[in-house]
Amino acid sequence: MKKTAKAYGAKSATADLEPMTIERRELQATDVNIDILYCGVCHSDIHTVRNDWKGSTYPVIPGHEIIGRVTEVGPNVNNFKVGDLVGVGCMVDSCQSCNSCQHDLEQFCENGATFTYNSPDKHLGGQTYGGYTTSVVCDQEFVLRVPENIDPKGAAPLLCAGITTWSPLRHWKVKKGDKVGVIGLGGLGHMGVKFANALGAHVVMITTSPDKADDAERLGAHEVLISKDQDAMKAHANSFDFILNTIPVGHEMDPYLSLLKIDATMVLVGAIENMREFHGGSLVMGRKRVAGSLIGGIKETQEMLDFCGEHNIVSDIEVIDMQNINEAYERVTKNDVKYRFVIDMASLK
Amino acid sequence: MKKTAKAYGAKSATADLEPMTIERRELQATDVNIDILYCGVCHSDIHTVRNDWKGSTYPVIPGHEIIGRVTEVGPNVNNFKVGDLVGVGCMVDSCQSCNSCQHDLEQFCENGATFTYNSPDKHLGGQTYGGYTTSVVCDQEFVLRVPENIDPKGAAPLLCAGITTWSPLRHWKVKKGDKVGVIGLGGLGHMGVKFANALGAHVVMITTSPDKADDAERLGAHEVLISKDQDAMKAHANSFDFILNTIPVGHEMDPYLSLLKIDATMVLVGAIENMREFHGGSLVMGRKRVAGSLIGGIKETQEMLDFCGEHNIVSDIEVIDMQNINEAYERVTKNDVKYRFVIDMASLK
Repeated sequence: MKKTAKAYGAKSATADLEPMTIERRELQATDVNIDILYCGVCHSDIHTVRNDWKGSTYPVIPGHEIIGRVTEVGPNVNNFKVGDLVGVGCMVDSCQSCNSCQHDLEQFCENGATFTYNSPDKHLGGQTYGGYTTSVVCDQEFVLRVPENIDPKGAAPLLCAGITTWSPLRHWKVKKGDKVGVIGLGGLGHMGVKFANALGAHVVMITTSPDKADDAERLGAHEVLISKDQDAMKAHANSFDFILNTIPVGHEMDPYLSLLKIDATMVLVGAIENMREFHGGSLVMGRKRVAGSLIGGIKETQEMLDFCGEHNIVSDIEVIDMQNINEAYERVTKNDVKYRFVIDMASLK
Repeated sequence: MKKTAKAYGAKSATADLEPMTIERRELQATDVNIDILYCGVCHSDIHTVRNDWKGSTYPVIPGHEIIGRVTEVGPNVNNFKVGDLVGVGCMVDSCQSCNSCQHDLEQFCENGATFTYNSPDKHLGGQTYGGYTTSVVCDQEFVLRVPENIDPKGAAPLLCAGITTWSPLRHWKVKKGDKVGVIGLGGLGHMGVKFANALGAHVVMITTSPDKADDAERLGAHEVLISKDQDAMKAHANSFDFILNTIPVGHEMDPYLSLLKIDATMVLVGAIENMREFHGGSLVMGRKRVAGSLIGGIKETQEMLDFCGEHNIVSDIEVIDMQNINEAYERVTKNDVKYRFVIDMASLK
């Protein structure tokens, strides 16, 4: 018997989100059914609702920062039991056999990962529906264990904002004593600061806004560098071991590249759009690098959640009711949130 | 007693090169005096003569692909003796004590490497003078040993074009079986093809010009990919382990980034100027990287020369007399040379 769930979604690129009823698939042998407690609001949700990246198929039910409790497990589920606190992030399936999947990089599955929403649904046809809903059915391989000691509301954004910043910090081996810059203090940036601090780095928040200094330091930054202050930028030239760039829109890169040490890397995680011109010499002089990074694999996501449990790290959030999602979207687009909205799904039940 | 040498140089950004007489410093304890046999003509020579990068101080005596024989050594020279075949590349000095120098990256000397021409001269004041001359005095630490079994004329461009392409291939650990792209078939690109081939890679010449295909294959390319052929570009998408980008001017990067595998790097060595806009997603989707690389350190340059001796690799060149340098410059700016001009310095003596 197919399951239904209450949800909130958009019927078109210009419509507000509104209540809907969606189908969830019947539980398969390796499936876990999850009662959703909280779901974070990611900027990608808004881009998909508004079809900014094209390819949106309506209705769109967004949400890929899902926290809930297991209510049912299929007969072959061996990792989870009823009552477990779990999470589902940006992906719900992948081929599990290609080179990327075998290297724990499901986000780059060569046969196409199934993303949590607006991705072709192998089970029901049509598109996948995300976490702005009361329940989700997901294969156990894509279900994450959430430590019971951390606040589950604050844990929701770890599933996207968390892993998106954790993955590059780990992949580029940020370690104790490294000087790490985090550019931009938003949903991603505030997690980057917390993680880099917890990894033992000397963390510098790089921002255009002097008024973000206090908050950056509260979150774990040891210094704040105002990128419009040319003297300050010069004083930090060629000194960073790693820079995590969370700016969500296209921007100039040369001023930030000037901050990198020889052989150091700046990783873009926020801007899936055109970057402005940059000077070849900004990379050539110092063998510097620019890279990109996309969320992270499932194994790495579990490692991140375990680390958060050990270090008691969650996101700074504002909790909203499902019914207030449209106002929340307006505020996100104005960067008016510290630092992530999380929907309390009890409001939909 | 100060030495003088016959030379060719430019008195201003708009002047042709003309005969001059320059001073060379007296031999110091660790200096080697070199009778110059050949000097390659690098595009950087022209940029400096024409003040394209600003900061040129006249007269400019270019030339940093120098091959010659030792005629005299200082009392503390222990690496070279009279008669040795040697080379001098882009640098003639560095502090030898900073972090970069201690890691064999003299090109990034934190106290400023002394480049072979148009760099502040610590000994005589003014600017250093390059290799378009009959002799040069150089500290032994910056003199390279040239294998006697390779053609000394063809060896000249190894000192810049050679190390510029060798260094990134080695630093990014190109190995047997890797699929390596070399973009652009000029002075740099033709060396990139030879080296990548000799390192055992599957080499793909990536060019806009179908008429370069035969020559690319003669030089060692296993395939030729015409970058304007969109079907061909798609067929090669996400398949390259490494791309060496020798395009000498600013250009679009997205089409080339699409060729890289997950985690693979494209290295810019040619364009010290503005690159066009590129899409953040070109890096984010696949955790791809763009880097820059500048010549190479002295130790690595010696390794490259030794490798050339073992594999009998030299540049493809056209030999000219010193007096024909101005015509050669015109031809270089039109890419009308296969693949490097080398001045026979006997013409100046």
